[in-house]
Amino acid sequence: MVDYSPAMMTDMYEYTMLDATLQDGTAQRKCVFEVFTRHLPEGRRYGVVAGTGRLLEALRDFHPTDEDLKFLADRKIVSPQTIKWLENYSFSGTMRGYREGDVFFPNSPILQVEGTFAECTLLETLILSIFNYDSAVASAASRMASAAKGRPCMDMGGRRTNEWSAVAASRAAMIGGFKGTANLLAAQLYDLPAIGTAAHCFTLVHDSERDAFESQIQALGRNTTLLVDTYSIEDAVKTAVEVAGPELGGVRIDSGDLAQLAQRVRSQLDALGAGNTKITVTNDLDEYAIASLQTAPVDSYGVGTQLVTGSGAPTCAMVYKLTEREGVSGAMEPVAKKSKDKATVPGRKLAYRSFEGDLADCEHVVAGPEEALNSFGAPENWRNLLTTFVNHGEINDQFTGHQAIMDAQQFHAKTLSELPITAQSLMRGDPVIPTETTVLK
Amino acid sequence: MVDYSPAMMTDMYEYTMLDATLQDGTAQRKCVFEVFTRHLPEGRRYGVVAGTGRLLEALRDFHPTDEDLKFLADRKIVSPQTIKWLENYSFSGTMRGYREGDVFFPNSPILQVEGTFAECTLLETLILSIFNYDSAVASAASRMASAAKGRPCMDMGGRRTNEWSAVAASRAAMIGGFKGTANLLAAQLYDLPAIGTAAHCFTLVHDSERDAFESQIQALGRNTTLLVDTYSIEDAVKTAVEVAGPELGGVRIDSGDLAQLAQRVRSQLDALGAGNTKITVTNDLDEYAIASLQTAPVDSYGVGTQLVTGSGAPTCAMVYKLTEREGVSGAMEPVAKKSKDKATVPGRKLAYRSFEGDLADCEHVVAGPEEALNSFGAPENWRNLLTTFVNHGEINDQFTGHQAIMDAQQFHAKTLSELPITAQSLMRGDPVIPTETTVLK
Repeated sequence: MVDYSPAMMTDMYEYTMLDATLQDGTAQRKCVFEVFTRHLPEGRRYGVVAGTGRLLEALRDFHPTDEDLKFLADRKIVSPQTIKWLENYSFSGTMRGYREGDVFFPNSPILQVEGTFAECTLLETLILSIFNYDSAVASAASRMASAAKGRPCMDMGGRRTNEWSAVAASRAAMIGGFKGTANLLAAQLYDLPAIGTAAHCFTLVHDSERDAFESQIQALGRNTTLLVDTYSIEDAVKTAVEVAGPELGGVRIDSGDLAQLAQRVRSQLDALGAGNTKITVTNDLDEYAIASLQTAPVDSYGVGTQLVTGSGAPTCAMVYKLTEREGVSGAMEPVAKKSKDKATVPGRKLAYRSFEGDLADCEHVVAGPEEALNSFGAPENWRNLLTTFVNHGEINDQFTGHQAIMDAQQFHAKTLSELPITAQSLMRGDPVIPTETTVLK
Repeated sequence: MVDYSPAMMTDMYEYTMLDATLQDGTAQRKCVFEVFTRHLPEGRRYGVVAGTGRLLEALRDFHPTDEDLKFLADRKIVSPQTIKWLENYSFSGTMRGYREGDVFFPNSPILQVEGTFAECTLLETLILSIFNYDSAVASAASRMASAAKGRPCMDMGGRRTNEWSAVAASRAAMIGGFKGTANLLAAQLYDLPAIGTAAHCFTLVHDSERDAFESQIQALGRNTTLLVDTYSIEDAVKTAVEVAGPELGGVRIDSGDLAQLAQRVRSQLDALGAGNTKITVTNDLDEYAIASLQTAPVDSYGVGTQLVTGSGAPTCAMVYKLTEREGVSGAMEPVAKKSKDKATVPGRKLAYRSFEGDLADCEHVVAGPEEALNSFGAPENWRNLLTTFVNHGEINDQFTGHQAIMDAQQFHAKTLSELPITAQSLMRGDPVIPTETTVLK
């Protein structure tokens, strides 16, 4: 068992900055931090927001334990006064942002965190870890699910990434449009559909393939999916139907030329009277491989490595930047660093997507002083993209747990249908809609 | 708080295969499973084994909880008899393999798991998750540490990957030769050196850069590292030395042309009398960027994204294959699937590295029937690569915890020094030594 709190999922400098600002008084300044990325992975048309629900769940538990405080004190990372302050830490600020399942583009403010410098700065690493990984997986999943054109995609990638990433990946894959996961911990924690077939070792531990198939049918029923490529696929399919009868649920092919093999296996199954037996394929699939199988008689896809590693983009380059803070006068002041290649637009942002008919045509990011933002009137065809997840420390439970995942999956499908169809092109290109940034005076 | 056991970090089919084999009797057959990869990431000369210590720590806790058993029963994933069996589950087998920090090549049997089919099959996903991620990070870390030629590399990548991957990455980076981590949970769990500077938001929350520097010096002392690229680097370095004096510990540059900037900052620091003030650079570094900074006056590197995503290879393609099992007669029989593109060599393996003088010249994998293996005599210049980590259920604690990481770091440095120098070339090429597989009769 691991007994931990997310409060240590933090880079050390967040605690040392807390310590310094508590001593100099700036810790209490009101701040706005924003999460965004400067660019999509090369050639991608859109990204998919995922992680918000996990962040809210982690936020609930973000209280240093006694053991954590002892560690911070023993290592002299913070002063005794800061330890006292941390004993009562609880995030009392506000978070709003893009809904899970929404799409994002360069500079989309997918999360805004408002609170004191002290309470916001401690969350930097945790927030970025969650959004960077979860959104990378959801973005890849969405492309795969699109390429599958309605055939279900299943997550089988847990073994190709860290064991906890596996859980986050299952959840993010669902948001991107996947229909189930092989990962039991994800199924358990988030009440997701669990799926599975059998491994080659199962066939090999038996004295014959027939013994293995009989055993699996006996334990799991005729509706199970048998793995048919341990030895000869043709022999295996024959044996499978002999053992299970034409009611056999499915067969899985995990090697070779999947398009050709699926065609042959389909013909063989049909000839054996097993016209309803499904074919599932696995074997290093990505969105391109899935697209190439469009005309093959495949019923579902099991995706591993490329899903959990974001199909070439295992992280999203999300950053967490201070964009506005209280000044000496008590008024909020836009701020930004001026580093040459990493300049940011100062000030809190509003975010909208404008529509021409049913289709989105532009993402709008509006920055400026608070008064200007508060009195900003968006045109009628601009949809507000920001939703409040945490209101002065109150977490809205609607955005956590199982239902939030299913809502996000549905929201993503709807959002994707509102983008120009080139969004679903697998060819490299620019973001499918441009982002316009307006700075109000 | 999360209350969980690693027993659910499992693909569903492992439990359904367990269920079927418990019913048909093959669950009790003795088996040997092996972990290996069929290929290194494209162009890589070697891989670095990492994850063994984490696996042993997880194995200690691999017992389904009451909640887990209820989940398995409620979802009808296994039968009531299997639930009974699981109540007493504890791995009672043997694990041996390559030491953490050792290098591996295609087909190196980095872990062998011996036990009944039932107890071994449940571990598949957890074992692969750990080795695939941890070894990917350690392999990248080793290349970066080599490219840094003695200058310390520090892990600052937690925010670019899942929050638990971050912890595993810190640990794996140390094995690959890194000297510290920004991640507090890793520092806490594994007693690792924690490092950190400050973020741009720290400068921005203050009314001036000078205020920020004064605050940091006040809280952390003159030996701290100040971030100097929020506004003008030249002004910042001047202010830094004015505030801290020539005893200033270090400055960090996080943007721009690092080679050029490091040169300018070094000259400026020297001119200000701060000849001992160190320069640390960060900003999307990878092994190539680090190599290109060889002649720049840089004292240490902070590495993020490319470390935790394996520098282009975020997973290792490790697989877990049944290679030998008890037959009807009770004797062990080599087994292997025959899938066209994924064929494996049947039988348990021995593994050696042969030396010509002080340098390794070949990896040797020896397979065959048990009697042949047991009587195999390796030549004198062949070093045995297999170490026992778990002996009939007894976990050897020497391979867990903090000390195991430091031992692995040292072992890796030694191992790397025994490879031909081309191992450290960043140019794409073949594995630095070939692997020869011998099948005994």
